[in-house]
Amino acid sequence: MDITAKKTALRMIPYGLFVLTARSDEEHVASGAVNWVTQSSFDPPQVVVCVRKDSYLHSVIEDAGTFALNAVGKSQEDLAVRFFKPVEVDGQTLGGFAFKAGATGAPLLVDVPAYIECNVVGSTQTGDHTVFIGEVVNAFAELEGEARPDESILVLSDLGGDIFYGG
Amino acid sequence: MDITAKKTALRMIPYGLFVLTARSDEEHVASGAVNWVTQSSFDPPQVVVCVRKDSYLHSVIEDAGTFALNAVGKSQEDLAVRFFKPVEVDGQTLGGFAFKAGATGAPLLVDVPAYIECNVVGSTQTGDHTVFIGEVVNAFAELEGEARPDESILVLSDLGGDIFYGG
Repeated sequence: MDITAKKTALRMIPYGLFVLTARSDEEHVASGAVNWVTQSSFDPPQVVVCVRKDSYLHSVIEDAGTFALNAVGKSQEDLAVRFFKPVEVDGQTLGGFAFKAGATGAPLLVDVPAYIECNVVGSTQTGDHTVFIGEVVNAFAELEGEARPDESILVLSDLGGDIFYGG
Repeated sequence: MDITAKKTALRMIPYGLFVLTARSDEEHVASGAVNWVTQSSFDPPQVVVCVRKDSYLHSVIEDAGTFALNAVGKSQEDLAVRFFKPVEVDGQTLGGFAFKAGATGAPLLVDVPAYIECNVVGSTQTGDHTVFIGEVVNAFAELEGEARPDESILVLSDLGGDIFYGG
């Protein structure tokens, strides 16, 4: 296999940016920026999110059995970048951004254009990430004007330069 | 759950467009436009593709144990739209577009900017689509100029109007 072609072809997949959060109990809250996300079923509504196996976020999602995906708005690059590295909970803020507890317990960022909360209904481990399948149990979305929903959130290519998570 | 919010939030996920193909034997060739695609592992390189359970494409992928994802170029909207509906194999064309047989046997469209071929290494059925996990075993990619790879393929929002596959 041509390794350069493999890398380029995989980097051609466009991605939106999300802050994935989970909470298993009072002490264990985890979050991180993710982009390996896709819907995987209409009925029931389900999504796939792929999480690095050796991450703290992974262990908290496994313990909690639930997670939230917070969509990052077009103007919220600072928020996305903040969650590239581990962040601390401080009162009702996560990495300095206000959150509230969702129905599942997962932190929901209060200033994002959309979020979904999910119960984990399946998972597969065949590589260095676990493929979690989550069934959507709660959702919020706020669209500005007439924009298509899929043009209203931050995408990886908006970050420019050589920032990729894939390849 | 707010069903309108659920639909809008899920439609916020941006997607690239791909033609998914598979061949289980001489007689059984299947293809279709898909967008529920994400990478799911770096090492080994794997991707997730979600395929409607009741589709012909689904049964051929299950029989073949392999598939190819052909990336649709920015100027190839006609190609993507062609594969929204079932197409016929005619000699070395699929829906009127030339293809060659890949290493896995899956049809590779000859005029696309990139493709990957995968062996199915896992699958999960929890909804109306199967989540197939494919390990990349062959790849081709051709980038024009200095474009970011993830800005070089057709995305669902390029189709405009109210065309979505998600929500």
